Amino acid sequence: MSRFSEPNDPIFRRLDSSISYDRRLGPHDVAQSRAHATMLAAAGIIGEDERDALLGGLDQVAAELEGGTFPFAPDDVDIHMAVERRLTDLVGPVGGKLHTARSRNDQVATDLVLFTRAHADAALAGIGGLRRTLLELAERHLDWAMPGYTHLQRAQPVYLSHHLLAYFWMLGRDAKRFAFVREATEELPLGAGALAGVNFATDRGLLAQQLGFARVAPNSIDAVSNRDFVLDYLSAAAICATHLSRLGAELVLWSSEEFGFAEVADAWASGSSIMPQKKNPDAAELLRAKAPRIVAHLTGLHGVMHGLPLTYNKDLQEDKEHLFDAVDTLELSLAAATGMLGGIAFDRERLAAAAADELIAATDVADLLVRRGVPFRQSHGIVAGLVRDTLAAGKSLSELSREELAAHSPELDDEFYDLLSQRAWLESKVSEGGTALPRVQEQLERARADLG
Amino acid sequence: MSRFSEPNDPIFRRLDSSISYDRRLGPHDVAQSRAHATMLAAAGIIGEDERDALLGGLDQVAAELEGGTFPFAPDDVDIHMAVERRLTDLVGPVGGKLHTARSRNDQVATDLVLFTRAHADAALAGIGGLRRTLLELAERHLDWAMPGYTHLQRAQPVYLSHHLLAYFWMLGRDAKRFAFVREATEELPLGAGALAGVNFATDRGLLAQQLGFARVAPNSIDAVSNRDFVLDYLSAAAICATHLSRLGAELVLWSSEEFGFAEVADAWASGSSIMPQKKNPDAAELLRAKAPRIVAHLTGLHGVMHGLPLTYNKDLQEDKEHLFDAVDTLELSLAAATGMLGGIAFDRERLAAAAADELIAATDVADLLVRRGVPFRQSHGIVAGLVRDTLAAGKSLSELSREELAAHSPELDDEFYDLLSQRAWLESKVSEGGTALPRVQEQLERARADLG
Amino acid sequence: MSRFSEPNDPIFRRLDSSISYDRRLGPHDVAQSRAHATMLAAAGIIGEDERDALLGGLDQVAAELEGGTFPFAPDDVDIHMAVERRLTDLVGPVGGKLHTARSRNDQVATDLVLFTRAHADAALAGIGGLRRTLLELAERHLDWAMPGYTHLQRAQPVYLSHHLLAYFWMLGRDAKRFAFVREATEELPLGAGALAGVNFATDRGLLAQQLGFARVAPNSIDAVSNRDFVLDYLSAAAICATHLSRLGAELVLWSSEEFGFAEVADAWASGSSIMPQKKNPDAAELLRAKAPRIVAHLTGLHGVMHGLPLTYNKDLQEDKEHLFDAVDTLELSLAAATGMLGGIAFDRERLAAAAADELIAATDVADLLVRRGVPFRQSHGIVAGLVRDTLAAGKSLSELSREELAAHSPELDDEFYDLLSQRAWLESKVSEGGTALPRVQEQLERARADLG
Amino acid sequence: MSRFSEPNDPIFRRLDSSISYDRRLGPHDVAQSRAHATMLAAAGIIGEDERDALLGGLDQVAAELEGGTFPFAPDDVDIHMAVERRLTDLVGPVGGKLHTARSRNDQVATDLVLFTRAHADAALAGIGGLRRTLLELAERHLDWAMPGYTHLQRAQPVYLSHHLLAYFWMLGRDAKRFAFVREATEELPLGAGALAGVNFATDRGLLAQQLGFARVAPNSIDAVSNRDFVLDYLSAAAICATHLSRLGAELVLWSSEEFGFAEVADAWASGSSIMPQKKNPDAAELLRAKAPRIVAHLTGLHGVMHGLPLTYNKDLQEDKEHLFDAVDTLELSLAAATGMLGGIAFDRERLAAAAADELIAATDVADLLVRRGVPFRQSHGIVAGLVRDTLAAGKSLSELSREELAAHSPELDDEFYDLLSQRAWLESKVSEGGTALPRVQEQLERARADLG
Repeated sequence: MSRFSEPNDPIFRRLDSSISYDRRLGPHDVAQSRAHATMLAAAGIIGEDERDALLGGLDQVAAELEGGTFPFAPDDVDIHMAVERRLTDLVGPVGGKLHTARSRNDQVATDLVLFTRAHADAALAGIGGLRRTLLELAERHLDWAMPGYTHLQRAQPVYLSHHLLAYFWMLGRDAKRFAFVREATEELPLGAGALAGVNFATDRGLLAQQLGFARVAPNSIDAVSNRDFVLDYLSAAAICATHLSRLGAELVLWSSEEFGFAEVADAWASGSSIMPQKKNPDAAELLRAKAPRIVAHLTGLHGVMHGLPLTYNKDLQEDKEHLFDAVDTLELSLAAATGMLGGIAFDRERLAAAAADELIAATDVADLLVRRGVPFRQSHGIVAGLVRDTLAAGKSLSELSREELAAHSPELDDEFYDLLSQRAWLESKVSEGGTALPRVQEQLERARADLG
Repeated sequence: MSRFSEPNDPIFRRLDSSISYDRRLGPHDVAQSRAHATMLAAAGIIGEDERDALLGGLDQVAAELEGGTFPFAPDDVDIHMAVERRLTDLVGPVGGKLHTARSRNDQVATDLVLFTRAHADAALAGIGGLRRTLLELAERHLDWAMPGYTHLQRAQPVYLSHHLLAYFWMLGRDAKRFAFVREATEELPLGAGALAGVNFATDRGLLAQQLGFARVAPNSIDAVSNRDFVLDYLSAAAICATHLSRLGAELVLWSSEEFGFAEVADAWASGSSIMPQKKNPDAAELLRAKAPRIVAHLTGLHGVMHGLPLTYNKDLQEDKEHLFDAVDTLELSLAAATGMLGGIAFDRERLAAAAADELIAATDVADLLVRRGVPFRQSHGIVAGLVRDTLAAGKSLSELSREELAAHSPELDDEFYDLLSQRAWLESKVSEGGTALPRVQEQLERARADLG
Repeated sequence: MSRFSEPNDPIFRRLDSSISYDRRLGPHDVAQSRAHATMLAAAGIIGEDERDALLGGLDQVAAELEGGTFPFAPDDVDIHMAVERRLTDLVGPVGGKLHTARSRNDQVATDLVLFTRAHADAALAGIGGLRRTLLELAERHLDWAMPGYTHLQRAQPVYLSHHLLAYFWMLGRDAKRFAFVREATEELPLGAGALAGVNFATDRGLLAQQLGFARVAPNSIDAVSNRDFVLDYLSAAAICATHLSRLGAELVLWSSEEFGFAEVADAWASGSSIMPQKKNPDAAELLRAKAPRIVAHLTGLHGVMHGLPLTYNKDLQEDKEHLFDAVDTLELSLAAATGMLGGIAFDRERLAAAAADELIAATDVADLLVRRGVPFRQSHGIVAGLVRDTLAAGKSLSELSREELAAHSPELDDEFYDLLSQRAWLESKVSEGGTALPRVQEQLERARADLG
Repeated sequence: MSRFSEPNDPIFRRLDSSISYDRRLGPHDVAQSRAHATMLAAAGIIGEDERDALLGGLDQVAAELEGGTFPFAPDDVDIHMAVERRLTDLVGPVGGKLHTARSRNDQVATDLVLFTRAHADAALAGIGGLRRTLLELAERHLDWAMPGYTHLQRAQPVYLSHHLLAYFWMLGRDAKRFAFVREATEELPLGAGALAGVNFATDRGLLAQQLGFARVAPNSIDAVSNRDFVLDYLSAAAICATHLSRLGAELVLWSSEEFGFAEVADAWASGSSIMPQKKNPDAAELLRAKAPRIVAHLTGLHGVMHGLPLTYNKDLQEDKEHLFDAVDTLELSLAAATGMLGGIAFDRERLAAAAADELIAATDVADLLVRRGVPFRQSHGIVAGLVRDTLAAGKSLSELSREELAAHSPELDDEFYDLLSQRAWLESKVSEGGTALPRVQEQLERARADLG
């Protein structure tokens, strides 16, 4: 396929060849070739019999690829040449007409955009499934109290449902991102040729229609140079994976003996080769561990694109492995998160005991003073002093005497004890989006509506 | 502001304090405080006179911040405490009421989302300006021929307008990304409190309305843990900067003596401390060099978020410097690209001479054979052989004799010479989005419409 | 300083100027200028009186820089031109002779290598201080039992000293890395000129000797293109920061109410603006959070260097901010880790209670069977079954009856109860590098020797 | 291998299993198992007959792994369990004794450190080969003049040998880095057990000796938590790959028609699917493109290690794929660079013509004035003015009249013309490390000595 006949050096071939991984684009390559052959005939560039021969051959190629019987040859350097070579084996010289008015440059961009679109859809489906699981979990654990944390210190109590829904909304933003990725795959590169357009009056609108694109890419140079849609996928996947890493990290924490809030099902845990007692939350750890991998793929492709002159450069071959591994990693992570959460068991008593820590009522005590006219900043100081002295005395807040209270503020009266004993701290968070039950129920409705 | 009175270690203070950079959020902090005070009064949580005192004080704080006269104190660890401290200096203890029903956790998230929104708008404006400049340049260089490159080898000729428009469309996708970022800043975190909501019946809808948010964040835990909008900004900025790095790299290349296609204006070049003859395209080099910086900020924040348990952790303080420097870098880069392109001079003769390289007509020769019924793959092989023999003989294509042509294919006749002499290669790229002039004009119209 | 007189565009100046940050190289710039002037005179390129005038002027420049009185001018684009400009103000036209046989290209490389060397030393000092603190802590907590974790599950008990020493050895490897960085700063770039060497018979050996370099860089092109030493610093700093992030993360975990193993001193903690009870381990969180920042700087500079043609390109200006911020971040982090650990309090009882969890004796039970001839893999299975049935029955291991034991293995006899009651699990880890006290004491000696 | 019998979920198994890639550690796993069995017998923990049975079985396992006949089973989740499972198939229950006093935690660390050591050696060999090729190329192109560039603008002429040697020295630093990596693999983890050491009086010194380690890791906790040596490898590989990316980028540039300095051999080039004339320097492009991939692996692993509590966490499973792909990429890149350079052809005439550009003599003209007593800064200004006027007049420097010269400086006399006509610019760069031939010859000697 070149003007030089000296064979390529074997080391060069190993460096240059992409067939070991881009074969995965095979079905998309055949789909676009079918559309291309159809268009070439419709535009009068090839005959109808030639089109039929090509389509017949492509049917067989598709079947061979799907059935795993496609006969790859040692000289197939990429999937595009492999498909064309095989097609020509099957249908004869007319196979050589398929590449009329097409270049590998627009061809590979088209395969890749079709692949990305399919996997944006897959990500959306995976996210949808995980969100449904989270919603169900929230419904099942509606009024289970637990501590909310800041700085990994108990801060204020919340309901487990409320905590789980935080992930529901994070993943909702991920869904928006993948919808954006999908939109970024709506422009057809095919027909841009090597870079300048082609010497034939092709019908790119017909190609777009057949392959499900909304539009034709407006500039042939951009069409073959553009990998934005891959960067968009990787950007979205990196954020989604980072969300999953937070979920994974929390589950690891909650599975520790010290927290004891949750236990993953046996089907999602592993043991130790040396310690017989171990039940390790490997799936949660791996959810955590996968985010840097996808972030790395994103930065790797950014590095490849950095300062790259237009149009196609061989560097662009480095797009595929980053994308493929990110796709596999994200889809597996979403499925694993869904499965693991599906079988998780929370420990209501451990959660409740931790949430009953009196110190986390401190904000409520301060707000009690606020309601009596003490400026918040001042009431905060009063309660901070109260906490300091209580801890120094080795007591809990409810063990303080009236006199001790009065020493800190005359406004601290019996309502202080009521506040601590009623444990109404959760239900007092009545603001919109807060953890009081009516608010969580409101939120659940909004979540159900959001899922559609 | 804590339950412990032992003073902080000076090294801890250096590590912990953010005032040296987050003061930049000052105007947003005051704006949200104004809205918060207004809402507190509307909800009956503070009195109208208290509100008025707070608003009056905040007016002065705003003026001091804008005028550069705000008196920062050594103990101001962040902008939020500095504003509140100053406000209390100005209006007395009522200043301490401003923090009622608010935490620094929702406060900083709100400042940051306001900042991000403003700079999404700034990016959109910068991109718009650069796109306009590119469009004007394309109009002015409509029919200037130049070589298109693949692998940095001359491939097929294109018009300079067509090449410049490739960047126009890249930047159009950047604009879509920043519109997405803007949408990601439409949910109000304020009112989430520390993490669980607040003990007051606040009116978050009123806050949202005053501060220009479309919606209230539905989950208080997510609201204070969420930095997605910063990741969204950084993701968009990284791709945009990578586009600019490609532009910069091409301008560096075109400014070399070897290419000689373009010369930046003196106002955008620098000299050498030792070599008096030098005129260096520093601005283009720096456009290229800035992309890894923004990508680094993106990965840095991903690293910070990785595996971070909910809700607020001090790690989140690391969000701001990444964002601020990315904002400054991107906005300066966009302005510089616009300014530099505004004064650039292209060398029509050098471009045309390079575009006249006969070898880049090879695709057209192959397509000539295709029109005569030779399958493309076969015609490609014929022309490759022709090129090989021509180069080996030290000739150019048009110097080949009829006999030499015939030796390669009987279909190569006089039309071969016509094709080379007419230099109609550009105008033959008639496909949609191709470089033929009518197609470029079509594209210019589409571009004008896209700019609105 | 150029062949064009049109003034630079203000936006270009903002992009191009480095004086706002490279002024920090001032002392190194003066030091190399002193050496350069001395060498020029020794080589007969300038006169001795000229040298003396230059050295006198440079003394004043150094004093002004140190005292903060150096009069920067609006046109100073970088520290090199600022120093030369000021020098010429002070000593007249002879100041213009200083740049003989020197270019900014070798000048900036020399400043930067001197800066890097100084901060490799600073990192070594910071690491040394932290290692001493860790060693002292280990000595003070020699026999405090605690659980060792895998997968954040209690695995086997260890001594706190042993755990702390793990960080000692990590940091020992960091010290080796910075010693390598130091070695990477031993080649003098100065004298390479713009890129090709200079037109004068300079004495680079004399320069090297004066500035404390071991060698002269052997190739002028490489000398001005090379930023490896910065990458080396950043690579070493990234690993060191990642170690500190693990330390920080563990301290955050141990400071939680659930673990309760450690409490940072008040001087190293912060409170909450809304929750009066909070004591947050901010310093530990920030130690954790800083690693991605340094990793980001490393990747940023790799991005800048990617595919950059030789020799100097303006892109290299992007080296400094990455390095400077990494230096500041790492040195502050090391100081903070040292200070925070200096004041930390561990809770012996909480640690011991967690370490007494009978389940973490499971490996020891399995090894008991091994000593009786049961192959390890089989004994592991037996004990795993024992644990499963024990948990299912809601018992602890020591509550099992002889019959229950016998049902799992005839080899489980009274020694089983002895093993659990003696709690000798720690002391049984007698292998070299293990946690048995004699081994830890051996380790402490090795550590003391390592510190020298 | 766990206390729970419920089978793992298939999705969990896909996430958790590493056998698809860690089988590559097989030979190292067998090697350490041989050493471990030998040590267990020497320490009296197993019998000599048991040892012999294990060694016999391991011989067969090794042979099966090498021959590709090792029968992997569906339940083999990693190479360690696969080897032990197969061993037990072969030798019966005694196979279960191999894991005595060993955990997968120290086992995998040991496999990995052995793998890393082997590939540090491979990198050193690859670098050595490339350096030899560069040295030979430099010797063959000793006195070929070419332009040296700054900012991709012609700056000063150099010899091609000098330019090629710049890469020689870069790679010399890479060799030092990999020697450091090798040193980082000199501590034996094996014997650390799960994390705390083992319940047996093992002889780790004997293990170290058998497996070629210099030392035993001093702390069992660190030994199983440590992946520094992988980070060290990746850090070194990233810098080396970045060097290769600069080499690749220059070769791409030099292969363009515009530069025309070099042509890669046909064996290292590829053609186009559509443009028959193309000869693309794909190998050079891929050298450039691979650096971000290795940098991405480095950042990926940093991300995994970030904030990870001690000791082993499943996250560490993510170390291997980063390392393996980096190893393959770097070794292939080094081989490709060596092969491609071995067959490259430089165009002496194109290089010389570019080097004859009179403007690059400007520094020499300025230095001529310096020798006559004009301070350098002033002479630089004079020559800059000269260049400006010359270009404005559309002339070359040698076409200026005496009067025109005199208008700029009285010191510009006939020597000016001599300087331009003699083209002695290269030989005037006489400083150490400069491009004058005697200096390059000096450098070649130093280079030969460095290679040893």
